[in-house]
Amino acid sequence: MVERYSIAIHGGAGINPAKLTPETKQKIEQALERILRFGKEELASGKHALDVVEQVVMQLEDEPLFNAGKGAVFNATGRHELDASIMDGKTLQCGAVAGVRTVKNPIHFARIVMEKTPHVLLAGDGAEAFAEEQSKIDSKLVLVDNSYFSTPERRREWERRNHIPPNGKATELEDEEKELGSKKGTVGCVVLDRFGNLAAATSTGGLTNKKFGRVGDSPIIGAGTYANNQSCAVSCTGAGEHFIRHAVAYQVSARMLLQEVSLQTAVEQVMFKVLEENTGGLISVDHQGEIVMLTNTPGMSRGAANSKGLFEVSIGR
Amino acid sequence: MVERYSIAIHGGAGINPAKLTPETKQKIEQALERILRFGKEELASGKHALDVVEQVVMQLEDEPLFNAGKGAVFNATGRHELDASIMDGKTLQCGAVAGVRTVKNPIHFARIVMEKTPHVLLAGDGAEAFAEEQSKIDSKLVLVDNSYFSTPERRREWERRNHIPPNGKATELEDEEKELGSKKGTVGCVVLDRFGNLAAATSTGGLTNKKFGRVGDSPIIGAGTYANNQSCAVSCTGAGEHFIRHAVAYQVSARMLLQEVSLQTAVEQVMFKVLEENTGGLISVDHQGEIVMLTNTPGMSRGAANSKGLFEVSIGR
Repeated sequence: MVERYSIAIHGGAGINPAKLTPETKQKIEQALERILRFGKEELASGKHALDVVEQVVMQLEDEPLFNAGKGAVFNATGRHELDASIMDGKTLQCGAVAGVRTVKNPIHFARIVMEKTPHVLLAGDGAEAFAEEQSKIDSKLVLVDNSYFSTPERRREWERRNHIPPNGKATELEDEEKELGSKKGTVGCVVLDRFGNLAAATSTGGLTNKKFGRVGDSPIIGAGTYANNQSCAVSCTGAGEHFIRHAVAYQVSARMLLQEVSLQTAVEQVMFKVLEENTGGLISVDHQGEIVMLTNTPGMSRGAANSKGLFEVSIGR
Repeated sequence: MVERYSIAIHGGAGINPAKLTPETKQKIEQALERILRFGKEELASGKHALDVVEQVVMQLEDEPLFNAGKGAVFNATGRHELDASIMDGKTLQCGAVAGVRTVKNPIHFARIVMEKTPHVLLAGDGAEAFAEEQSKIDSKLVLVDNSYFSTPERRREWERRNHIPPNGKATELEDEEKELGSKKGTVGCVVLDRFGNLAAATSTGGLTNKKFGRVGDSPIIGAGTYANNQSCAVSCTGAGEHFIRHAVAYQVSARMLLQEVSLQTAVEQVMFKVLEENTGGLISVDHQGEIVMLTNTPGMSRGAANSKGLFEVSIGR
């Protein structure tokens, strides 16, 4: 076990700090600081990368400010559907869940999928059935009523959207399309632990007012989440369709391994050359503990800390 | 429009030609020949890549010999759940569906998702609701009863599996794990058309006896399917979890673009160095029409044709 460790967290890209009240800004920063400090202390005490990303993302899920777990956005039917994924950079083992409705902490469930099944991704009713089964033997897998995820703020946001006069389907889709440019608080965490292992985790409530079982990048290994001890760990946030199309999380790792560029260069290329403006952001850490956090949107709630004393949170681009 | 075009199709890796009866082998070869000829003629007549991969995969779905559309395997509850994805190498636009139950041709539905929504992937009940809506305005989007996909052969296969004495869940998962090594006829098509455009499409009924809403690589852009005019078009078949973990379809493209190796080298590296033995196979075509089809299993049903007169189908490794 060496001294060196690094951690980065995010609470979503697409946030415009100029439009936040000072009070909201402070709330977000305080939440990020609290959760970042927890993760940093876990790493300092010698906890393993996979455990730290899982527990940090569980805290981000429990924090109603972010669009994951408690505080998830409302879908078109006024309910919540959650997605999450986790990956172990040491073994390349990974797990993910999509469209779950009663699991308090989807990231913990993603880890169960990784460790207790031969599968990577479980979705919908089948995932719910497996969660119910596992909740009987795993006290951390807590099932809740779907209304647990609701907060008054998210409900108001959703009601405002639904007051836009509906002119049929085409309009609704166009409307959703606009939404893709302004994501709402997907969360994630990447770490390098003191054993030299990398891990990444991402969790989200998806798009406000989403319909038709849309699955974004967050539960897609390679798109929203990737980790490989040989290169880096990545967690993305943004317009999921772009992140899937360009396999963004995997592509950052691939550029390091195949082009032999630094993490900084790899992320810059992907964020500003491959992706279009205003599509999202990502946090990443490489196998030497370098942290790179970039967004091509006006802002991204984020925080970073390491064993050299770095400890900072920020929102603006 | 130039003279040059290329097409490759597959009906799944993991097939062992030594274990086929001469009659079955002939049936598979005849089906591959018929569908390959159709695709080749379409390309020769100047049809576009995206249309050709879609229509070829629709024919593969309609052919009961393969595990996609009619003839899909039975899941754990004795029903069928289908996945498909399609990608346009010119625009990088893509569409996919997972866990659909009443759509006769999932690949056509994936194309509708690509063209009529801002999304990439729709899953489960939401996808079904969108299919029902679209079937009213698109006569090619045919809805069928789930029993349409059943064939006596697949039912016998499923019944045989279920006669294995069930010793609870652990055994069932182990059992599924073994299954991952021997896939059952996922289908796909990749083409270079006479306009220099690439496209790829993949469709599957997934794993026999699958449960818990498992989603494999076939509906995951980057894992089971990828196309980029700058590099290649790829359709994969195999143990989906490995293909997700290594972003196989995207990785082949990434190696061409970032390492600047040939398609042949890129596919060899992925198939024999990155992936473990007996995990699957893939078909691919590059932007100059080179076709590479490789598997690390005992066999893969496949066929390839081009404008230079190549026309062949094969099953053995």
